[in-house]
Amino acid sequence: MATNCIFCKIIKGEIPSFKLIETEKVYSFLDIGPLSKGHALIIPKYHAEKLHEVPDEYFGDVLPAAKKIALALGAENYNLLQNNGRIAHQEVDHVHFHVIPKPAASDTEGLVVGWPAQKPSMDELKKLHEELVTKL
Amino acid sequence: MATNCIFCKIIKGEIPSFKLIETEKVYSFLDIGPLSKGHALIIPKYHAEKLHEVPDEYFGDVLPAAKKIALALGAENYNLLQNNGRIAHQEVDHVHFHVIPKPAASDTEGLVVGWPAQKPSMDELKKLHEELVTKL
Ligand SMILES: [Zn+2]
Ligand SMILES: [Zn+2]
Ligand SMILES: [Zn+2]
Ligand SMILES: [Zn+2]
Repeated sequence: MATNCIFCKIIKGEIPSFKLIETEKVYSFLDIGPLSKGHALIIPKYHAEKLHEVPDEYFGDVLPAAKKIALALGAENYNLLQNNGRIAHQEVDHVHFHVIPKPAASDTEGLVVGWPAQKPSMDELKKLHEELVTKL
Repeated sequence: MATNCIFCKIIKGEIPSFKLIETEKVYSFLDIGPLSKGHALIIPKYHAEKLHEVPDEYFGDVLPAAKKIALALGAENYNLLQNNGRIAHQEVDHVHFHVIPKPAASDTEGLVVGWPAQKPSMDELKKLHEELVTKL
């Protein structure tokens, strides 16, 4: 846990939150600046800034919690989003997963997604793939 | 598995893919219409359209795979995104998690995120919270 982290303080109960699900490894609560009604956050009880820094044991309850929250919300359309790094829209430096209902096709509520698809050649993909498999 | 699902066919090897990680429960591969170099997909080996329909046992390897891919990509900034429903930008009806590097603060590469934060009152949040906890 980090002393200056708002999410660590929420986990420890030093800052109040609208708690939804808590397990040994994760804590979830309502986002108080929601993109839509029901927007919730799920955080591992481990202070790490980015996903790739979290020990696997803290991951196990994340998606089951997201699923339970989605079912409780009864949302037909929703996004699960986890941002890493400032330019990828991370605004609190403790790994967190957003469950964001999308009540309507609108730019004023819910996550707004832009999708600038690239058109790499098969050769470029093949080369990238060969490079990545050596690192996995 | 669903006979008309492109991702089920990829899992079965009936459609080729640039495979990254495969475990008993998940399959991952390069997105061939990537938002940025290294954009990858992770899918459970279970055909369900939305997150809340996937049995928990298929979730266990998803985030560890996302972490391994992020480490292999060496991305400092990246998004993990899982879309449910057409208006939430789901385009293939088999649950999938996108790992999307964000190489630069730009609208032409990587995920483009819009964030129309709402301003509910504490009373509205409290009421919603009371309602949700009865359903969890
Ligand atoms: Zn923290
Ligand atoms: Zn966030
Ligand atoms: Zn399928
Ligand atoms: Zn998709």
